[in-house]
Amino acid sequence: MKKVGIAILGLGVVGGGTYEILRDHREFYKKTQDVDLEVVSVLELRRDRIEALGIPEENVASNIAEVVSNPDVNIVVEVMGGVGKAREFVLDALNAGKTVVTSNKELVCKYSHELERAAKRHNAGLYFEASCVGGVPIIRTLLDGVQANHISSMMGIINGTTNYILTKMTNDGASYLDVLKEAQSLGYAEADPTADVEGFDAAYKLSILSSLAFHTKVPFSKIFREGITTVTQDDIAYGKELGYCLKLLAIGKQTEEGIEVRVHPAFIKKEHPLASVNDSFNAVYLTGDAVDDVMLYGRGAGALPTGSAIVSDIIYAATHSENKYSTFKNNATAEKDVKFVSNFKSAYYLRLTVNDEAGMLAKIAAVFGKQDISIQEMVQKENAQDGKATLVLVTHATRELSLRSAVSKIASLGIATVDSVLRVVS
Amino acid sequence: MKKVGIAILGLGVVGGGTYEILRDHREFYKKTQDVDLEVVSVLELRRDRIEALGIPEENVASNIAEVVSNPDVNIVVEVMGGVGKAREFVLDALNAGKTVVTSNKELVCKYSHELERAAKRHNAGLYFEASCVGGVPIIRTLLDGVQANHISSMMGIINGTTNYILTKMTNDGASYLDVLKEAQSLGYAEADPTADVEGFDAAYKLSILSSLAFHTKVPFSKIFREGITTVTQDDIAYGKELGYCLKLLAIGKQTEEGIEVRVHPAFIKKEHPLASVNDSFNAVYLTGDAVDDVMLYGRGAGALPTGSAIVSDIIYAATHSENKYSTFKNNATAEKDVKFVSNFKSAYYLRLTVNDEAGMLAKIAAVFGKQDISIQEMVQKENAQDGKATLVLVTHATRELSLRSAVSKIASLGIATVDSVLRVVS
Repeated sequence: MKKVGIAILGLGVVGGGTYEILRDHREFYKKTQDVDLEVVSVLELRRDRIEALGIPEENVASNIAEVVSNPDVNIVVEVMGGVGKAREFVLDALNAGKTVVTSNKELVCKYSHELERAAKRHNAGLYFEASCVGGVPIIRTLLDGVQANHISSMMGIINGTTNYILTKMTNDGASYLDVLKEAQSLGYAEADPTADVEGFDAAYKLSILSSLAFHTKVPFSKIFREGITTVTQDDIAYGKELGYCLKLLAIGKQTEEGIEVRVHPAFIKKEHPLASVNDSFNAVYLTGDAVDDVMLYGRGAGALPTGSAIVSDIIYAATHSENKYSTFKNNATAEKDVKFVSNFKSAYYLRLTVNDEAGMLAKIAAVFGKQDISIQEMVQKENAQDGKATLVLVTHATRELSLRSAVSKIASLGIATVDSVLRVVS
Repeated sequence: MKKVGIAILGLGVVGGGTYEILRDHREFYKKTQDVDLEVVSVLELRRDRIEALGIPEENVASNIAEVVSNPDVNIVVEVMGGVGKAREFVLDALNAGKTVVTSNKELVCKYSHELERAAKRHNAGLYFEASCVGGVPIIRTLLDGVQANHISSMMGIINGTTNYILTKMTNDGASYLDVLKEAQSLGYAEADPTADVEGFDAAYKLSILSSLAFHTKVPFSKIFREGITTVTQDDIAYGKELGYCLKLLAIGKQTEEGIEVRVHPAFIKKEHPLASVNDSFNAVYLTGDAVDDVMLYGRGAGALPTGSAIVSDIIYAATHSENKYSTFKNNATAEKDVKFVSNFKSAYYLRLTVNDEAGMLAKIAAVFGKQDISIQEMVQKENAQDGKATLVLVTHATRELSLRSAVSKIASLGIATVDSVLRVVS
């Protein structure tokens, strides 16, 4: 039976989970995968973590050189996070010919070109299933499950923290800040929640997934990004009335105009399969030219789900002899001949506070008409107190720039304030 | 660039779809997969099908010997269906050392042991993603995506015809027979619908999927099977009132008692992700000890979705050098030391017509009590016309045999008729 030695860099939540899965399933993998996977080395500064897992002293390395020069180490698992030491250590491992399995989305997003170059040069494997959507095998699916397809569209709920927050806001009617605080106290959101709530985390993942789906490098810089910090309970409630559910969506499209990649909150019809993806669950909804629609759903984070993706990559690496790399030019930047669409098409939800007076609607309608924007649905709510009314409307598909022009024009007319603009996805 | 020659046996719906995908994506696969896939041989008796696809005469084989002796053929795609000629031809191909890709669930379910033995002997590949759930990469996921997990449970909507029928019955209030007729006229159901509506098709797939998930042969004969032909509109409507949706579920569980495999209509809470899988969409909901819950959703049938699975298998075979086989003993029958659970646990929905008289409920309750069955929910509907009432009840989890005993006892008391018994899944 093939014996494969594993090193784990970092024994935080995911590293600890990975260690436990490998330890508790060793006999199971011998039986079901015909391979003996053993953790032979760990690199971790915190003694308490090493002790909590009961790792024998002889398996604790004191530096990365010790790990990568260890002939018993075949696969190095990087679960440290960040792009400082993690990048350095991963390169050390690849340069020593070790196969690397990583859960580090920021690292893969920003440096896959560099890592892949090192991997190729030393005939090492590079696996990163765990970098996107936890235990859901979306990367394996893109590589080996729907690779027969031209993928035209990908829509994902790929950040657990924001989905938890939006689900709570939707179901409990709580405010963004209250739910954020609760999520922080439960450990679902970081003390500094920026990476999640501003959509960085989702954008890193979208960069990785859309590069694979569209077979060309989609750098982070090309991704339009808007977070959920300004989402209000009012909008969620009005959206609900109109049959919509608000989600932070990561969207990738490949159209004749080019590639379109964006992360932003969006209303989606409540019948859409993504609308029922709640709490910290994640999902990716793909459309291919042969397979049509496919959705993968599961836990996007957590020690064991992410550990599942890591260990599945380890088993894959241990039981396949070829190392595969991108078939596209994996550079730091996009290919010159690939177009990216920034003035994308979308339907929009707008909430306005209007002066409740005759002719107001006609004036607003004229602004939209001038931009060729047609209205799909409109609801007016009186607000007797101040002679103002709330006007909620949903447009048909239009261009982002046309919509923005209309919004500035309305603001400049002085008859209404535009309180929120959200995209609507169908 | 590696050139791979493909033969297609059968140019029906799926064979034709596969041919078109390969033809239309040839340049795309060269670019994205670094492989040149060419259909070099087809075997099909109907000239009209060959002509409709514009296949050059020199690529039309006149018999299987010609196909398998053709040195340009590397991969043989079997999309004929059935277990007569298809079995013979697949064995011929494997015995000639050709890798086989098949969509034939009945063949894989009943003869995987025989096919795998031939494949191993001749170092040929054997791929069958397309045999289960169309374009949804559930087999790749079990093999290479969640293989780090002990899978404890699998619940699937894996037959499109029955899901179409049940969805229509649920949404339109139509009767089973009316919807079946409509499905037949639309081509969604066969003239003889037995394989679908009696659950055979789902059971073939469940045998394949649960063998892979549980790492042991789960033969068709071990699967408890009940179709949808007796499902009534009344039950669907009462279920709806109670918050349930009726689906034909294929369930596989691995518990301490053993393996439990069953196909039957079942009520599922309308909030469950499987409840929103409608029309001809399919889905499989897995639970693993590390990954927790994962669902894969997509089109379970059709020329292009199934063709997508076939071509994805072809690309996988063409770009991976190892041929992998079951790590469990793939025999015709189950392993001797593996236990199967037939007296499984489930909650149940019952609809009774009762004499609307004093003490009736107490008598029925006593029967359930004697079998240790507790009632979760009960609704009584008066039916003034004949002094009878309808009693709908949902039990807590109990054993199949206890429930059956209770049902016979109630029938023997002469105070009620049991009109339907359906399982309820949580």
